[in-house]
Amino acid sequence: MGKEPPQHPATAGFDFSNRKPEGDDKERLVCNGCGFVNYVNPKIVVGAVTEWEGKILMCRRAIEPRKGFWTLPAGFMEEGETTEQGAAREAREEANADLEILSLLAVYNIPRISQVQLIYKARLRSRDVSAGVESLEVAFFDWHEIPWSEIAFPSVIWALNHYMQVRDVTRFTPFVNPDGENGNFPPSMRY
Amino acid sequence: MGKEPPQHPATAGFDFSNRKPEGDDKERLVCNGCGFVNYVNPKIVVGAVTEWEGKILMCRRAIEPRKGFWTLPAGFMEEGETTEQGAAREAREEANADLEILSLLAVYNIPRISQVQLIYKARLRSRDVSAGVESLEVAFFDWHEIPWSEIAFPSVIWALNHYMQVRDVTRFTPFVNPDGENGNFPPSMRY
Repeated sequence: MGKEPPQHPATAGFDFSNRKPEGDDKERLVCNGCGFVNYVNPKIVVGAVTEWEGKILMCRRAIEPRKGFWTLPAGFMEEGETTEQGAAREAREEANADLEILSLLAVYNIPRISQVQLIYKARLRSRDVSAGVESLEVAFFDWHEIPWSEIAFPSVIWALNHYMQVRDVTRFTPFVNPDGENGNFPPSMRY
Repeated sequence: MGKEPPQHPATAGFDFSNRKPEGDDKERLVCNGCGFVNYVNPKIVVGAVTEWEGKILMCRRAIEPRKGFWTLPAGFMEEGETTEQGAAREAREEANADLEILSLLAVYNIPRISQVQLIYKARLRSRDVSAGVESLEVAFFDWHEIPWSEIAFPSVIWALNHYMQVRDVTRFTPFVNPDGENGNFPPSMRY
């Protein structure tokens, strides 16, 4: 047992052991009783950049991690929905915002936490927005008003910059992580 | 208990019940002992379309579902890798193919099975390919040679058609599901 890696929380305390299921080349946590394989896969975050009269919609987080910091409406995709539906749902939940999803702005990879972010360009159907339960407040910011020193995650900065490059463009190649960036927090954001 | 939905296999037989974690608006399977929340999220499939001298690389499946049918090199993304790394890994595992991932061809949503597929255009570095353990055989097909009546999944047909539209284009907007298609099998593929 001493050589086994720490158990995933989903199976900690249960009777699982690390072994390779038949036909697999990786060790997985397998139930010693029934053989159930606990596959753990990366999670998808869906989100959107949208604006009203030139000002970008942002939310101040009411929950950890990064409570109190500013982010774009985004969150974990749920079962049974499409990526576009998920991005619209998150904006509704976090900002009571009614979005029309337009096109894929970016695919960001954060392999440290096994996260893939699909961020869309969206059109806001009404300027009537308000804070949902996961937001302390929501606001529209001109580019120079964005609270750059209080941004929740590096990928929020990427998405804002990428959005500005294609703000008035309808057909474009989606962006990926900026060169050399993996989503880890730079020293300037570790406070 | 009679009104509870069937348990997810990850927790079946364990002491979990369906309830809303604090701050959540959906019921999840929560451990009655420790409070662990079993979040279940959509899974990402990563894959690639690539060719050698005009012929497209395909694999005949050695595993269920759709054993014996033809597909593109693709599979479930693993923890700790990027989507591009995952697509290259799957081609290596299924076809011993050495790929350079070029750009995102398509994002397909199959909400019935909570799957998001990220399919890339790729360059094959060597024509030296061979069947991996999950493939019965691998082959290069001219467009008119593709075994259209023996394709594994609808999204394989979508990806092949979309690839042909941007075969010689380097910058393009990635494709999504064809209009009205949700990835369910049409009658012609139910055999």
